[in-house]
Amino acid sequence: MSVNVLFAGRPDRWAEYQPLLDAALAREGIDAHVSPEIAPEEVDYIVYAPNGPVQDFTSYTRAKAVLSLWAGVEKIVDNETLTQPLTRMVDDGLRRGMVEWVTGHVLRHHLGMDAHIVNPDCVWKQGAPPLAPDRPVTILGLGALGIACAEALMGLGFPVTGWSRGPKDVPGVRCLAGNAGLDAALEGAEIVVLLLPQTPETENTLDARRLALLPRGAVILNPGRGPLIDDDALLAALDEGHIGHATLDTFRVEPLPDDHPYWRHPRVTVTPHIASDTRAGTAADVIAENIRRSEAGEPLLHLVNRTLGY
Amino acid sequence: MSVNVLFAGRPDRWAEYQPLLDAALAREGIDAHVSPEIAPEEVDYIVYAPNGPVQDFTSYTRAKAVLSLWAGVEKIVDNETLTQPLTRMVDDGLRRGMVEWVTGHVLRHHLGMDAHIVNPDCVWKQGAPPLAPDRPVTILGLGALGIACAEALMGLGFPVTGWSRGPKDVPGVRCLAGNAGLDAALEGAEIVVLLLPQTPETENTLDARRLALLPRGAVILNPGRGPLIDDDALLAALDEGHIGHATLDTFRVEPLPDDHPYWRHPRVTVTPHIASDTRAGTAADVIAENIRRSEAGEPLLHLVNRTLGY
Repeated sequence: MSVNVLFAGRPDRWAEYQPLLDAALAREGIDAHVSPEIAPEEVDYIVYAPNGPVQDFTSYTRAKAVLSLWAGVEKIVDNETLTQPLTRMVDDGLRRGMVEWVTGHVLRHHLGMDAHIVNPDCVWKQGAPPLAPDRPVTILGLGALGIACAEALMGLGFPVTGWSRGPKDVPGVRCLAGNAGLDAALEGAEIVVLLLPQTPETENTLDARRLALLPRGAVILNPGRGPLIDDDALLAALDEGHIGHATLDTFRVEPLPDDHPYWRHPRVTVTPHIASDTRAGTAADVIAENIRRSEAGEPLLHLVNRTLGY
Repeated sequence: MSVNVLFAGRPDRWAEYQPLLDAALAREGIDAHVSPEIAPEEVDYIVYAPNGPVQDFTSYTRAKAVLSLWAGVEKIVDNETLTQPLTRMVDDGLRRGMVEWVTGHVLRHHLGMDAHIVNPDCVWKQGAPPLAPDRPVTILGLGALGIACAEALMGLGFPVTGWSRGPKDVPGVRCLAGNAGLDAALEGAEIVVLLLPQTPETENTLDARRLALLPRGAVILNPGRGPLIDDDALLAALDEGHIGHATLDTFRVEPLPDDHPYWRHPRVTVTPHIASDTRAGTAADVIAENIRRSEAGEPLLHLVNRTLGY
């Protein structure tokens, strides 16, 4: 019996995804028809992205699951028309890309690279930075991505503190939890990496009070979600010099509006939401495995808890 | 019986080294007098740097060894007044610093960071780079530093080819050797890292012919030694666009002269010989251990083969 899989990702990604999804489903032994155009009442699974065509799930009466291509599900988790199980993307390509972005920008700030990349006066000025063991890094969020980044940074010698809402135990990481733990995680952190999910509870995690807990000159990396930061508070802390630099990949409004002060702030680097791009090749495998699991009556991978919001 | 250790490093480093050397020698159980001023005929060991005060070793008739603070010994290895055993610096701090610099700049080029760090038009332009497994890196030189960098890059997923004059076998690295191996190591290398010692044989390792073997747009990192590159050939390949970027930490003349074309070339980043700074703390330990070994009649660590030149 064939299953009908609706591709409701961004239409311009269909050409890339079509052969990959077909091949991945065939490898899983699933007889599937995958298409961006299937009558709603005939759809068994929906491959979803927030920037795709489907936002109202009411008419998809037969659909057994909605499989998100995105790691962050904040744009769908409160959708009241969604009654099916929802899974989020946890793929190896996304994990690798995030580890590369985070490790690269941590090293960039650790080594003070910008002074050499932008050196209009062409000055030979020596002085080596401290070594990684003397550069404490804090990661907020110890999900799959936070843990992978922690492991890469520890491999280079950085001492890593990790914070999560509930207690976790990650080997080698100084793990803190809860509100008091968050304050402790920020004190002394020379580089802070935001990898929390976007939920009502995580909004403005870095507000004026918590930014003030960081040591002077601290650097913030936000490859997580824009609303994790109180933008006005961050801009004030950057202007004042308390925060040395912010390298931001995610924003409340994307693309970042042309007139946003982040664009031209000398202490801000904007990267255009590229840290954690879902990679079609590995994502197709995750989608296919979840369809196989569902058809076999096995539990879905990466199922979203809609109360927690991730 | 006390040994006399002459500090012949750069005079302005003495204040930093004095307590570290005293402490390290005490830990090794050596009764030592360390000073930058000892009568030559009373000196037992010379702690040496090329930018220090001693270049003629003739009058140091009692000295049992010259212990270099630098990893590269090309400025002393041909010194005919030197008749004592010579050791070079292999310290954990230097190794760590090199791994950080190389890993950081490999990731910087891999991720295309410069476009975001210097983004005068403030353009939101997406597009993720390939992942590390699709970015081949070649390291020329498989000494302690080359191997350490290879391991860090492989840990991030980069496929690493390593080249050395004689055959070597490093787990996980595609190891090539000899002249034919060098050509093969360059073909297909998107990022090349130069970590060869400076010897007559390694001069101009990257000449016009070998630069032409690299794929168009390849990036060169030189934290090794300036003369490894034929500067005119590199500038021509950069002008032509065949080489996408060169990030150079070492030069034939240092500091790099103000009017050198590397300073203002849009495809060149100059870092001021900071990749592999000897770290006083760990270097003092290596010096002290070698003095203990010498006094105990044990073989010295990191002894230079003056025929090979390293």
